[in-house]
Amino acid sequence: MESQYKVNSNGGIESGATATTRVANKRNIRGWDLVLRFSALALSLAAAVVLGVDKETTTVSMTLVPTLPAVNVPVTAKWHYLSAFVFFVVANAIACAHAAISLLLTLANRGGNKGIALMVVLFDLVMVALLFSGIGAALAIGLMGYEGNSHVQWKKVCNVFDKFCDQAAAAMALSGAASVAFFFGWCLPP
Amino acid sequence: MESQYKVNSNGGIESGATATTRVANKRNIRGWDLVLRFSALALSLAAAVVLGVDKETTTVSMTLVPTLPAVNVPVTAKWHYLSAFVFFVVANAIACAHAAISLLLTLANRGGNKGIALMVVLFDLVMVALLFSGIGAALAIGLMGYEGNSHVQWKKVCNVFDKFCDQAAAAMALSGAASVAFFFGWCLPP
Repeated sequence: MESQYKVNSNGGIESGATATTRVANKRNIRGWDLVLRFSALALSLAAAVVLGVDKETTTVSMTLVPTLPAVNVPVTAKWHYLSAFVFFVVANAIACAHAAISLLLTLANRGGNKGIALMVVLFDLVMVALLFSGIGAALAIGLMGYEGNSHVQWKKVCNVFDKFCDQAAAAMALSGAASVAFFFGWCLPP
Repeated sequence: MESQYKVNSNGGIESGATATTRVANKRNIRGWDLVLRFSALALSLAAAVVLGVDKETTTVSMTLVPTLPAVNVPVTAKWHYLSAFVFFVVANAIACAHAAISLLLTLANRGGNKGIALMVVLFDLVMVALLFSGIGAALAIGLMGYEGNSHVQWKKVCNVFDKFCDQAAAAMALSGAASVAFFFGWCLPP
């Protein structure tokens, strides 16, 4: 009769049922890890693309010469006009690349090499920091564009470029979701 | 004669020399953890205070009526005029409070309760995210104040409020160092 007891990695003895539960738990965690990594990849890619294609041209009424009537002048808003938005797109592109590489590494690392797992988790934390700084920067500039500030005499621009601002807000929400995915990916044990 | 072998937590047997090295390593890690937590506390507190007391009053030459000569008008810059700076100060105050509480918990948790240690490390990560978003927001607004942006017609203000901007930059550097301390605190095993 085959023994139902096995020797575990710590040199202890465990029943077949316990070992099966442990393996099932490990598979479950691995499944969640892959789902979170794929979500982070998709969300950060979407965030970078949504802001990266953000552009709006509209016309504003301007009085060029006081004695003449106001004329309609075309004005354009592009994402790369603001350095905070450039940083946001770059940060999300880096996070997306990390998510793709870590997804491949996690799939390849079936043997459970602790060194690779730890390196992936360490870079997950770097991505959390990078994405949050990108969101903070974009949100600060976006909020300034939405509300303006009388103290520094920076006028709001979102009343003119409403579609541009809505698209930027959507990109920030996507990036926020990506960083939450990285965060929960970190919470799972390697 | 007393045995030089001890039973470890995994049920295995180890020599007295190995056990001593392991205890010494654990003490070393605990020491580093306390040093990093204290550094994070001091740095985030310093960052919050340095920006929280940031205020500058200066005079600018303004032409109020075109036919009259320019007059010197006093203008004041305060940290709470900008919502990004308010967020930065609040984020650093929260991180400082967490550093103080986690320092006490780490000192009290000599028994090595894994639950408390994990909770502290989890909040460390939240603080990394919070501090980086605060730095991102403050840096985006600070850079805008330093350089201005012709596309949205936001003029630079740091040429007028130079001391104010320098103090804000110092606060950001302190907060950056605090977040690095939280980051490395996380890298240490619990």
